[in-house]
Amino acid sequence: MIDVEELRDCYTKTSTKMVLLVADGLGGLAHPDTGKSELETANIPNLDALAQKSACGVTTPVLPGVAPGSGPGHLALFGYDPLKHQIGRGALEALGIEVDLQPGDVATRGNFCLVDSEGLLVDRRADRIPTEFSAPICERLDRIQIPGVQLDVFSVQDYRFVLRLRGEGLSELVTETDPQVTGAKALEVKAIKPEAQKTADIVNEFVKQAAQLMAEEERANMLLLRGFAQLPSLPAMGEVYRLDPAAIAAYPMYRGLATVAGMNVIPTGKNFAAEMDTLRANWDKHDFFFIHYKPADAAGEDGDFDAKVRCLEELDPFIPDILELGPDVLMVAGDHSTPAIMAAHSWHPVPFMLHSKLTKGEGVPTFDERACALGSIGSIPATSVMVMGLSHAGKMTKFGP
Amino acid sequence: MIDVEELRDCYTKTSTKMVLLVADGLGGLAHPDTGKSELETANIPNLDALAQKSACGVTTPVLPGVAPGSGPGHLALFGYDPLKHQIGRGALEALGIEVDLQPGDVATRGNFCLVDSEGLLVDRRADRIPTEFSAPICERLDRIQIPGVQLDVFSVQDYRFVLRLRGEGLSELVTETDPQVTGAKALEVKAIKPEAQKTADIVNEFVKQAAQLMAEEERANMLLLRGFAQLPSLPAMGEVYRLDPAAIAAYPMYRGLATVAGMNVIPTGKNFAAEMDTLRANWDKHDFFFIHYKPADAAGEDGDFDAKVRCLEELDPFIPDILELGPDVLMVAGDHSTPAIMAAHSWHPVPFMLHSKLTKGEGVPTFDERACALGSIGSIPATSVMVMGLSHAGKMTKFGP
Repeated sequence: MIDVEELRDCYTKTSTKMVLLVADGLGGLAHPDTGKSELETANIPNLDALAQKSACGVTTPVLPGVAPGSGPGHLALFGYDPLKHQIGRGALEALGIEVDLQPGDVATRGNFCLVDSEGLLVDRRADRIPTEFSAPICERLDRIQIPGVQLDVFSVQDYRFVLRLRGEGLSELVTETDPQVTGAKALEVKAIKPEAQKTADIVNEFVKQAAQLMAEEERANMLLLRGFAQLPSLPAMGEVYRLDPAAIAAYPMYRGLATVAGMNVIPTGKNFAAEMDTLRANWDKHDFFFIHYKPADAAGEDGDFDAKVRCLEELDPFIPDILELGPDVLMVAGDHSTPAIMAAHSWHPVPFMLHSKLTKGEGVPTFDERACALGSIGSIPATSVMVMGLSHAGKMTKFGP
Repeated sequence: MIDVEELRDCYTKTSTKMVLLVADGLGGLAHPDTGKSELETANIPNLDALAQKSACGVTTPVLPGVAPGSGPGHLALFGYDPLKHQIGRGALEALGIEVDLQPGDVATRGNFCLVDSEGLLVDRRADRIPTEFSAPICERLDRIQIPGVQLDVFSVQDYRFVLRLRGEGLSELVTETDPQVTGAKALEVKAIKPEAQKTADIVNEFVKQAAQLMAEEERANMLLLRGFAQLPSLPAMGEVYRLDPAAIAAYPMYRGLATVAGMNVIPTGKNFAAEMDTLRANWDKHDFFFIHYKPADAAGEDGDFDAKVRCLEELDPFIPDILELGPDVLMVAGDHSTPAIMAAHSWHPVPFMLHSKLTKGEGVPTFDERACALGSIGSIPATSVMVMGLSHAGKMTKFGP
C-alpha cells in the first residue's frame, strides 16, 4: 500500500504538469578546509535563483539517522513508505542491468567463485575475474534447462551475474548459498516457508548442473547465490495519484524503480542532455515527469568533493531549460545525501525545493543544506514530496469536509 | 518491539564508542523578567563550544504537546516507542526505590490511610505520616504469608510503600482498591481478565490480613493499592543494536529503566562526579554508555529557576572530561523539558547535540532551545536519537539495496 493511499479521495485529475527532478545523492557535508558543503561551494546561479522563488525544505528519506540505498530512497520520493515496501537485493540488481522482471519472477545475485577438489571455498569472488571471462560462462549457464521453470542467467560485471527464475508458484523465501567464509562448502538452498520448496528444489538443481558445467574452469569453477527477491507489488502511481506519469533516466536501475512504481518509462540517451531532449519531445504526452540526474551521486560515492561540485554545476544550466517548458510544479529533490567526505550514501536531510505559481517570494537565498533547512517547508519525510507537488499543482482537493 | 527493530539488519558491530549523556529535564522556558531560558541564562562555555562543532537539533519525547514521565522519556531516548511500551506506575515506583523486579512480578503502589470504625475512608493519605512511623508498619506487613505467592512490602517515603508479588501465573490486570474519595470503603480488587483471578484473590487476602494487623494503629489503620504493573518485555538494546551497553546513574529509577532496556548497570556513587569516575574506570569495558545527570530536573520541578541555571553550570565542566576519553560519538540529550516557571515536566522540544568526527562545522553558536531548533538535525522524535548516534559511530549500514 502506498503510504499516502489513504488520501486517495483527495487526488484529482487536472491538466497541470509536474516535474520531479531527482539529483541523486544531492545533499552533502562541509569540506573540512572550507566549512562549506558541495552545494555551498558550487556556482549554481540558476538553482539559487529558483530557490529564491520556491518553497524550500529538507527531506528525510527513511528515518533520521538512516542512510538509504537507491531503492528506498526513490520509493520514498514516489510516495511509498520505504519501510513497508522493500526491494530485495536480487531484484534491484536485476533492475540495475535492465533485466525484464515481472511480478512473480524471482531474481538473485550470483557470484562466481573458486572451490578446491573437495568443494571447499578458496575464493568467494573468483579473483574478481573480468567480464570477458565471466560473460561466456554466463552464456553456458543460461542454457541449463529445468522442467517447470524458465531460467535465465545475465552477466553483470566481473564475477557478478543475475539469475532469473520465471514460472508458476515461485517464492523468494529461500535461504542463500553463500556461507560467507572460505574453507566451507556452498550451502544448499532451503525453503524458509513450505510454499518455497519448489523454488529451493529448482535452485539446488541449477547449482548442481552449473557446477558440472564449470568443473573444468580454472579461475571460477563454482557459484554462490544470494539475495533471492521478487518485485514488491505496489499500487501504480498513475492510478493512485490520477496521473499519467513518465520516467526519464539514463541509468537502468532508475528506470527499473520507475517501472516498479508503475510509471511509463520513456527510452532516452546516456546523459542528462539526452534526458532533457526526451523531456522536451514528450512534454505534451504526460502530466508528471520523473527525471533523474546521476553524476552527483557517483562523484560523492567516489569521495571526490571537487568532482561532486562540478557535477552540481553541470546540472545548473539545465534548470532554465526545464522552466522554459512551463511546468506548473517543478520539484528539485534528492533520494539521499552522498557527502564526498563520507564517500557513501548518508542519512543527512536532503535539500528540497518546490516551484509553482504559489511559491513566489517564500524562498531562501541559496539552494543548499543550511538554507533549505530554514525554508518554509521545514523538514518533511521524503514520502510527503509527491503530495506537496500534487497540492501545488492543484491536483489535490481538501481532506475531509 | 523496539521502534527501530525493523532496521535490525542495518546495525553492525564495530569498536567505536558512544556516550549518551542524559541531562534530566534539560529543556526550559524563558524567565518572564529576562526572556531567557535556563540554558540561555547559564554560563556553559563547554556545552556552547561543543554545540559549535556538533550537529544540533531538538527532540520530541513522545508527541508534540505531550509531557512525559521519566519512564517514557528515557525509553524513547533508548529507541523504544514510548506509546507502545508503557511502564505501569507500580513497576516504576518499584524501580525508583531499587526493588528487584523480575519479569512476571507484579508491583503496586501502596498508601497508608485512615478509616473509621465502619471502614469508611477518613484520610486517604494517613495524614502523610513520616517514614519513621510507616517503615515499621511495612516491616510487619512484609511478614504476611499467603500460599502460592511471595509477598514483599517495601517502604518508600512517608505514607507510601510498594507491594511486590512474585510467583507463577500473576497478572497486572486487576482493579485498584483506592475509591479516590473519602467517606467510601476501600474497594475489593477485581480481575479485569479471568487469568488475573489468582492475583485478585491474593491481593484481597493480603489487604484483609493487613487491615487486621493495622487495626490498632491510630494514624494509619488501613491501606490502598493502585497501579498494579508488571515490567514490559523489551528486546534488549545490546541484542538489537549489537552493542555492549552500560548505564551509570546515581538515582535508582534510572538504573531501573536501564535494566528494563537490557543495559549493564554499573554501580556508582551519589553524584555526577562519582558517575564520571565510574565512566573512566569502565571506559574499556563497553562500547555504549548511558550516563545520567539528575540535578537540573530536580531544580526545575522545584520551580527554582536560579537553581536550575546553577545545576546546568555545574554540569558544564564535566564536558571536557567526557571528551578527554575520546568517544567516537557524544550525545547530549534530555528525557524531557522541565521549565522552572512550570515547576513540572513539559512537552517542549528538548535541545540535543551530537558530536562526532563527521559533525565539524555544522553546529550552532550556543547550546539552548532556540539555537538547537535551527541546527542541522532539525526536529526529530527522541526515538531517533539512538539511530542517529549509531550512524555517526559507523555502526549502521545503509537501509536497502
